[in-house]
Amino acid sequence: MKAVKNDQTAVFALGGLGEIGKNTYAVQFQDEIILIDAGIKFPEDELLGIDYVIPDYTYLEKNADKIKGLFVTHGHEDHIGGIPYLLRQVNVPIYGGKLALGLIKNKLEEHGLLRQTRMHEINEDDVIKFRKTSVTFFRTTHSIPDSYGIVVKTPPGSIVHTGDFKFDFTPVGEPANLTKMAEIGKEGVLCLLSDSTNSEVPNFTMSERQVGESIQDIFRKVEGRIIFATFASNIHRLQQVVEAAVENGRKVAVFGRSMEAAINIGQDLGYIRCPKDTFVDTQQLNRLPADQVTILCTGSQGEPMAALSRISNGTHRQIQIQPGDTVVFSSSPIPGNTISVNRTINALFRAGADVIHGSLSNIHTSGHGSQEEQKLMLRLIKPKFFMPIHGEYRMQKMHAQLAVDCGVPEDHCFIMDNGEVLALSKNSAQLAGKVPSGSVYIDGSGIGDIGNIVLRDRRILSEEGLVIVVVSINMETYKVEAGPDIISRGFVYMRESGDLIYEAQSMLNKHIHRVLSKKTTQWSEIKNEIIDTLSPFLYEKTKRRPMILPIIMEV
Amino acid sequence: MKAVKNDQTAVFALGGLGEIGKNTYAVQFQDEIILIDAGIKFPEDELLGIDYVIPDYTYLEKNADKIKGLFVTHGHEDHIGGIPYLLRQVNVPIYGGKLALGLIKNKLEEHGLLRQTRMHEINEDDVIKFRKTSVTFFRTTHSIPDSYGIVVKTPPGSIVHTGDFKFDFTPVGEPANLTKMAEIGKEGVLCLLSDSTNSEVPNFTMSERQVGESIQDIFRKVEGRIIFATFASNIHRLQQVVEAAVENGRKVAVFGRSMEAAINIGQDLGYIRCPKDTFVDTQQLNRLPADQVTILCTGSQGEPMAALSRISNGTHRQIQIQPGDTVVFSSSPIPGNTISVNRTINALFRAGADVIHGSLSNIHTSGHGSQEEQKLMLRLIKPKFFMPIHGEYRMQKMHAQLAVDCGVPEDHCFIMDNGEVLALSKNSAQLAGKVPSGSVYIDGSGIGDIGNIVLRDRRILSEEGLVIVVVSINMETYKVEAGPDIISRGFVYMRESGDLIYEAQSMLNKHIHRVLSKKTTQWSEIKNEIIDTLSPFLYEKTKRRPMILPIIMEV
Repeated sequence: MKAVKNDQTAVFALGGLGEIGKNTYAVQFQDEIILIDAGIKFPEDELLGIDYVIPDYTYLEKNADKIKGLFVTHGHEDHIGGIPYLLRQVNVPIYGGKLALGLIKNKLEEHGLLRQTRMHEINEDDVIKFRKTSVTFFRTTHSIPDSYGIVVKTPPGSIVHTGDFKFDFTPVGEPANLTKMAEIGKEGVLCLLSDSTNSEVPNFTMSERQVGESIQDIFRKVEGRIIFATFASNIHRLQQVVEAAVENGRKVAVFGRSMEAAINIGQDLGYIRCPKDTFVDTQQLNRLPADQVTILCTGSQGEPMAALSRISNGTHRQIQIQPGDTVVFSSSPIPGNTISVNRTINALFRAGADVIHGSLSNIHTSGHGSQEEQKLMLRLIKPKFFMPIHGEYRMQKMHAQLAVDCGVPEDHCFIMDNGEVLALSKNSAQLAGKVPSGSVYIDGSGIGDIGNIVLRDRRILSEEGLVIVVVSINMETYKVEAGPDIISRGFVYMRESGDLIYEAQSMLNKHIHRVLSKKTTQWSEIKNEIIDTLSPFLYEKTKRRPMILPIIMEV
Repeated sequence: MKAVKNDQTAVFALGGLGEIGKNTYAVQFQDEIILIDAGIKFPEDELLGIDYVIPDYTYLEKNADKIKGLFVTHGHEDHIGGIPYLLRQVNVPIYGGKLALGLIKNKLEEHGLLRQTRMHEINEDDVIKFRKTSVTFFRTTHSIPDSYGIVVKTPPGSIVHTGDFKFDFTPVGEPANLTKMAEIGKEGVLCLLSDSTNSEVPNFTMSERQVGESIQDIFRKVEGRIIFATFASNIHRLQQVVEAAVENGRKVAVFGRSMEAAINIGQDLGYIRCPKDTFVDTQQLNRLPADQVTILCTGSQGEPMAALSRISNGTHRQIQIQPGDTVVFSSSPIPGNTISVNRTINALFRAGADVIHGSLSNIHTSGHGSQEEQKLMLRLIKPKFFMPIHGEYRMQKMHAQLAVDCGVPEDHCFIMDNGEVLALSKNSAQLAGKVPSGSVYIDGSGIGDIGNIVLRDRRILSEEGLVIVVVSINMETYKVEAGPDIISRGFVYMRESGDLIYEAQSMLNKHIHRVLSKKTTQWSEIKNEIIDTLSPFLYEKTKRRPMILPIIMEV
């Protein structure tokens, strides 16, 4: 932060720029840091075996005493999933809306961090004051209830962070507070950080209400069971399904851990309202006629272990597809999931179900505003400076173009990377150095203990397999006492490759004896000889380059 | 074939039903088999390290003497890629159009199979007669020149196979022969096998000519260099790019092995026509002003090793992105490639290029007909029976629905799986048993030597890594002579996990001694002890389950 002057406000991200996920933003004025969101990212395919990715929290750890609080815009994993890992490094109070806090509490309980964490539920009219800065909120609409934009007032000016948003004028829950956004804009905004996710999508995103009408249509027409899969966190969607079920004389059975949790929390907090006897368990379900059944489940992304995948391939313990079933995918596949979603749809068709999915009907809508909504936000907030956030580089770039179209000067738009710091004065803004940023991998219980070497090994092992050569050598006589034995995994089917292995063994034998006859005590020399002999041999025979692992035992 | 009667024609697929790829169809009447296409499939992600997938050719091997010929509809890999592998098992003559044969010759040369293979170039008017059956052709339009539908005349009736097709009324090459299709339909068709790929897409697929107009627009407007990436096999597209370049005073440099091959073969066969000095090499390229440069390259699917990916990340030896460059993706991402295409687009934007891609402009069109074109084929051919081919189950199912809409009775539509045999008489059709079918994996030079065990090992290795425990044991004294040593790959970064390894070692030591004290000679007992001790220990410490490989050396 050295390049930031004492009268400037610094804005930067540890995650969420140039990527979808691990959203983590900070606004700092002197010794006060306001953190906004702490998300995780789900790993891309080449991060073999990695469960989640979180940002590098080094800067926060080093400046822990300055952090006033973590302000959460809404309860999606890419905005709250990093909290347990963050809290292990810095203990900060958390501020968030009712639902987000509910979800965070569940999460902290699982991690054994609930008791030690201070949490404050915020309402739209709250003002959280610190010595030099203060934080206020404005209600937005998104694919989860209780989503807020955040305003951080600092001496040089206000910084506005939209969180994820769309402008749904006919939402299922509370509407966005356009009036308050207009007031915030009127009071003057130094810098707007706005959601870029759908900046390549023209026009306006469809209202959740229209999805509700499609759901009603389906419930009115379908005569068999309805199996409805969607994102568990989209509680408004769940409420619409429950309403349609009740109106059409159907009960609802819930399958999948996150769906059960969402229904529970949704009922507890009053977002899901229905007659007491709406929900049924498996036993009651099996006694109902098909036209009184709704099955609400996870798996709309084709996740192999989720309820719907197991239903589709016949491995679900309680639910089997039966003739007349209609399966609804109220979702669109996230890039990278297309193939597994397709596989699930095909399996369901094969099992005899009818399948309704997003691309063919108005059964899903995005939670993110399209171009006209992003422009509306720009026109309401009227920022002096603009930073497109959330999304890949191309989306940030397009969003900056939209800002220019709405009158923000081009040199007032900052397309930034994670770690880059924007220093803002009353009338100027410029890049001012960097803070540490990067990706930390979580695999099992390990945080950051998987690095590039381990991942490179996993990649080689996954593509070509492994060949181990073990040999026991007597250190005094320079003789081979046992071996060389060859063991392989993921390379060839050993039982059918006897000749190959035998030939390799006798060749290695010769070479090892030659090296030992020089009375070397350098095991590395023998190891290199094994690799240099075996690698070209195996490549010639199989056109594969497995990892070769020589193991020498001294006896 | 036992369930097929002597006066019936059998139709079946070894690949291409319920999947995209490895298209391989057969029409058999008594002792005459007409093969149609022999494709490969590119493996899905879970087939770790597998290069290609081909069908199981067992049935063809066992009936090699009956096969009259392999008839190729067009030159795409999913229709011709399996030929070298097929020819190693059965030597059959190949019949195909000019371009397809050119591409097959290249392929057979690489595999050293060219000299021994009989090849016959076919023209639309050819009739290939065998004793009981005969084969004729009709020209179609597709995303590669010289694509044909195939008619197999058999005593019970004609079997029509469309190959891949669209109805492009304003194509770049020859138009489809609607007249001949109508005549074939008029003469009577027993069964139609038709391309289902785009059966979920309403309306009509855009003409290649319209893509040409978009290309012309870009060439007229752009002032810097144009870097144009597309499928190398789409030779009409290449011709349109070359034309646009010539008309706008630009030269063309070609990068990427398959693109160079396509330009060569396209020029040789007369599909790509331009003034002699149109193509330039890298040296000439570097002397040209930016507004006279076109770079035509591979990599439109974000393939990591292709020219465009290397250009985007700055590792291409000859081409670097410079300000003012415009990159055109004349393609749409195949499912599974979306993330790598996005990554390439982002890298190009970051490097300072402008990027035009398919979803935002009319710069690409599908080679497959949409619903109205599939219906047009059905109305022209007027088949008695219908078998939707090429595509996932859901696409076949939708295509069957379109056939019903066009007057084919529902029980005359057969949605089949690979291996299932349809037995056709003059007036009836029914399923009649199965032939062996399945997937054979090709990895390196191995055909079918990678099975499920090897793949399962690769998967475990890729997600959790490997821990090897080696111990040398004296068989006479029941003493440990060396070890236990622990070696890991892809599990944790060993240098930072000293404590974990040390703790595991001393624990194993104790357990191995305990087993040895029983004077066992059952190595499996020691191996199981090692796994049973180490696995829960490592899981508790790391929440990971690496593959554990105990190796015991007798000395």
